[in-house]
Amino acid sequence: PAAVDNLFKLHTPTYDVHVMIFIGFGFLMTFLKRYGFSSVGLNLLLAAFALQWGLIMQGLWHLEDGKIKVSIFKMINADFSTATVLISFGAVLGKTSPVQLLIMTILEITIFGINEHLVAEILGANDVGASMIIHAFGAYFGLAVARMLYRPALRNSHENDGSVYHSDLFAMIGTVFLWMFWPSFNSAIAESGTDQLMAVTNTYFSLAACVLSAYAVSSLVEHKGKLDMVHIQNATLAGGVAVGTCADMDIGPFGAMIIGFVAGIISTLGFKFLTPILASNLGIQDTCGVHNLHGMPGILGGIAGIVAVALGKKNGSAAMQGAALASSLGFALVGGTITGLIMKLPFWGQPPDQNCFDDSIYWEVII
Amino acid sequence: PAAVDNLFKLHTPTYDVHVMIFIGFGFLMTFLKRYGFSSVGLNLLLAAFALQWGLIMQGLWHLEDGKIKVSIFKMINADFSTATVLISFGAVLGKTSPVQLLIMTILEITIFGINEHLVAEILGANDVGASMIIHAFGAYFGLAVARMLYRPALRNSHENDGSVYHSDLFAMIGTVFLWMFWPSFNSAIAESGTDQLMAVTNTYFSLAACVLSAYAVSSLVEHKGKLDMVHIQNATLAGGVAVGTCADMDIGPFGAMIIGFVAGIISTLGFKFLTPILASNLGIQDTCGVHNLHGMPGILGGIAGIVAVALGKKNGSAAMQGAALASSLGFALVGGTITGLIMKLPFWGQPPDQNCFDDSIYWEVII
Amino acid sequence: PAAVDNLFKLHTPTYDVHVMIFIGFGFLMTFLKRYGFSSVGLNLLLAAFALQWGLIMQGLWHLEDGKIKVSIFKMINADFSTATVLISFGAVLGKTSPVQLLIMTILEITIFGINEHLVAEILGANDVGASMIIHAFGAYFGLAVARMLYRPALRNSHENDGSVYHSDLFAMIGTVFLWMFWPSFNSAIAESGTDQLMAVTNTYFSLAACVLSAYAVSSLVEHKGKLDMVHIQNATLAGGVAVGTCADMDIGPFGAMIIGFVAGIISTLGFKFLTPILASNLGIQDTCGVHNLHGMPGILGGIAGIVAVALGKKNGSAAMQGAALASSLGFALVGGTITGLIMKLPFWGQPPDQNCFDDSIYWEVII
Repeated sequence: PAAVDNLFKLHTPTYDVHVMIFIGFGFLMTFLKRYGFSSVGLNLLLAAFALQWGLIMQGLWHLEDGKIKVSIFKMINADFSTATVLISFGAVLGKTSPVQLLIMTILEITIFGINEHLVAEILGANDVGASMIIHAFGAYFGLAVARMLYRPALRNSHENDGSVYHSDLFAMIGTVFLWMFWPSFNSAIAESGTDQLMAVTNTYFSLAACVLSAYAVSSLVEHKGKLDMVHIQNATLAGGVAVGTCADMDIGPFGAMIIGFVAGIISTLGFKFLTPILASNLGIQDTCGVHNLHGMPGILGGIAGIVAVALGKKNGSAAMQGAALASSLGFALVGGTITGLIMKLPFWGQPPDQNCFDDSIYWEVII
Repeated sequence: PAAVDNLFKLHTPTYDVHVMIFIGFGFLMTFLKRYGFSSVGLNLLLAAFALQWGLIMQGLWHLEDGKIKVSIFKMINADFSTATVLISFGAVLGKTSPVQLLIMTILEITIFGINEHLVAEILGANDVGASMIIHAFGAYFGLAVARMLYRPALRNSHENDGSVYHSDLFAMIGTVFLWMFWPSFNSAIAESGTDQLMAVTNTYFSLAACVLSAYAVSSLVEHKGKLDMVHIQNATLAGGVAVGTCADMDIGPFGAMIIGFVAGIISTLGFKFLTPILASNLGIQDTCGVHNLHGMPGILGGIAGIVAVALGKKNGSAAMQGAALASSLGFALVGGTITGLIMKLPFWGQPPDQNCFDDSIYWEVII
Repeated sequence: PAAVDNLFKLHTPTYDVHVMIFIGFGFLMTFLKRYGFSSVGLNLLLAAFALQWGLIMQGLWHLEDGKIKVSIFKMINADFSTATVLISFGAVLGKTSPVQLLIMTILEITIFGINEHLVAEILGANDVGASMIIHAFGAYFGLAVARMLYRPALRNSHENDGSVYHSDLFAMIGTVFLWMFWPSFNSAIAESGTDQLMAVTNTYFSLAACVLSAYAVSSLVEHKGKLDMVHIQNATLAGGVAVGTCADMDIGPFGAMIIGFVAGIISTLGFKFLTPILASNLGIQDTCGVHNLHGMPGILGGIAGIVAVALGKKNGSAAMQGAALASSLGFALVGGTITGLIMKLPFWGQPPDQNCFDDSIYWEVII
């Protein structure tokens, strides 16, 4: 029957998204030299918890005969809501306890559910690859939390807040899996058929163009034309984020490539110039630079969506697209601020400054 | 034609199971600091050999016109039979020569084939995710072999019988791939349709619940509430094992979650308290703790299957389910004991005690 | 509609090939102790660039209404053309600048397109898994480039031209993903149905047999019967290369196994005995030994194809198969020589001898 075909047709993108969540995000964060256990381990914990909480939250919005029903489609959506938490996790990586992170998960997924309902059902905005409701939302939520948890003592960087050779290679496992499967992420809930095909190809082209600009800019801004591994691990993915909203729109290969190319530039420049300023001037210590990978490219994606709808590339209203972007940012900043305040309460076991970015506070580590 | 559709429909779960066998099991065992080459390398050798031997064994049970015919379905089954060998490999990891392991492969797959035929064809028992015929069988077979190969000199643990920071991260690659694709393992041979859908969702819920209990118990039993990487690498997967027999039964999300939750507890407690006792009191030196990941959760899965069939969640007979569990354990213990005795013969190149857990006895290693 | 079904049916092999290109090739080359960033990083850069260039080149050969049209089928083909570049990259790994490699990419994909058109359209030869047009072509192209870029100062091996323990484990990630997904590579463009099924099973059997012979020969030729990680990382894959041309032919499981078995032997012996001779006597310094993994097994595949067509295992002409092999080798050697001469021009930033095999010349590396 139809339900079964559906299961099968959704099977592959479901797994691809699953791989992005657990391997992609998990290993991307292993770049820190002494925080690999927490990166991949807490990623697993938070994601496994978030999947369940996400299914419950969705179920409450869509009760059937008073019951929560489960479907493959809802499981993909639960993976999606999990992604927001993992993006925010990147902003506070190394500076929070597991209990704080579980609290963040509960609150963030709840607020995500409200904003998603508003954007998709009330505003009727397009956001198939979720540039706005996942990437921008997750990034600014995490940045607001990071602002609330500001640690003055970490202004002069911490000795463990950096990578070693092999930790950077572990992180590349995450990068490459994210890069490869991003077309599935952006097409997973696209309408089957031409729309889904476009979502795959647009994302593919955006990512390919983004790699080129990320490498070029990294080489341009670094000393002696060298490449910086942080840029390669992250900015090469910004094209996937930025093309998300437009992924199933008829923007053409060149449209997609322009979006990706610009995203790679913005993201790399952000890592080089903006992240240090945010830390020193605004008190926002963004461990993984999620502002550069998810925040700015997410906004770029939202704006591209406004323009594309205005140009008639998809049914919809440019005003509603704009409202969706504003709503996502607003919920993220307000929600993140409140969540950060709650996380700051003194009884959640937040690690002291000197134990930040160090697995040995939460794990049995043999040195 | 139907055969081709079949190829395609089975394509994805086939590959997922393949990834579990070669990446999952292979990297899960790389946690030992000086035994990574053997873990992933011998895993590849044994699996490639076992696939072929498994196809021949299956073929002999199901001759068509006197010929062995190959199909995608039989290739999945060959991957399954391979899994039993890799589970047993975990029990004797670091203490056996490649030749000993090849002998174990030949014997174990042969005995597996007999037990599988008995359970599936004669007893007609349900075991879609193979809690009994793969996990419990493979674990107790391996433990029986380990008992036969007992090394008194290793009672006080060997200096190489432990992990280092990056070897634990390599192992997490295995853990996460196993965790992600376990729903495919448990659903690969389920009846297409609702049964397969249930096998996917039940496994997904069981695994998600299992992660939570494994983390909770690990933190409870460890010093200062810390987490132990061994528990996270292994016990988070016990939910996949334990829900195997019931995976395609109508046990509901909560039924699946309870099974996974209990499995996570049992498995973590087993690593903490039971493995040392087995080693010191019974002479069973279980390198990877397969008793905790596959043995006890496999029995739990068998018992859950008996209960579920008794409650009418699936056609079948509770008595036959019980007989299937007993048969699997019996064949494993007797078969493993005999196999262990054969492996103990003095001309298979078993490594001396001081070279255990050390790649350099079988590999050219540059230190 | 048909196009959409097509999208879906091609989805899984597409992604499998994608994983081989980005994870498989990328991590396979991380075996060098100080060249991991470049291996996986430049692999990503070259592949992302090559995909786009490959689509343009294909598009020019197959203009539709004066336009380049994109399809999933063409995207697979672009991945395929990318593979040739990554094979050649292996031959010159550690001795070329990113700019040199981009020039090689542009030229090699262009020449690949000409040869592929000749082989497939003009000669009408069979080469479904591309033993000739990708593997042999890419290898001999790279070897010709390496000959042109010969560095006498590296005759006595460079201190960084070797592996360390964990770099070899990273490389095994590449090996295992390549091994697992090779059946998809060889079947991706096979005719849907029985042909595709045969391409999957033949590749599976060839690879399984190849593992056994590679391990056996490695142990036979090494000191004290030890295994060499270089052989295991590479020669275990030669069966996938060698069965490529015949993959969709009715050669039977034993035919496939014989091809794989022989490929494993040739490849391992090549690493042990031939590579040193090529370097010392012919001035061909083949960093990854692509001659052993892709070159000789590719020729073996071409010859097996000639024999199989002569035996009537597939429609076609043995003479045309022979011409296809000769064409692939000819274009590779001539094209590679010209490309190597262009790459030798003094303004592409080729690294000096003492900085070969060292990430720190192109990457910000914290030691």
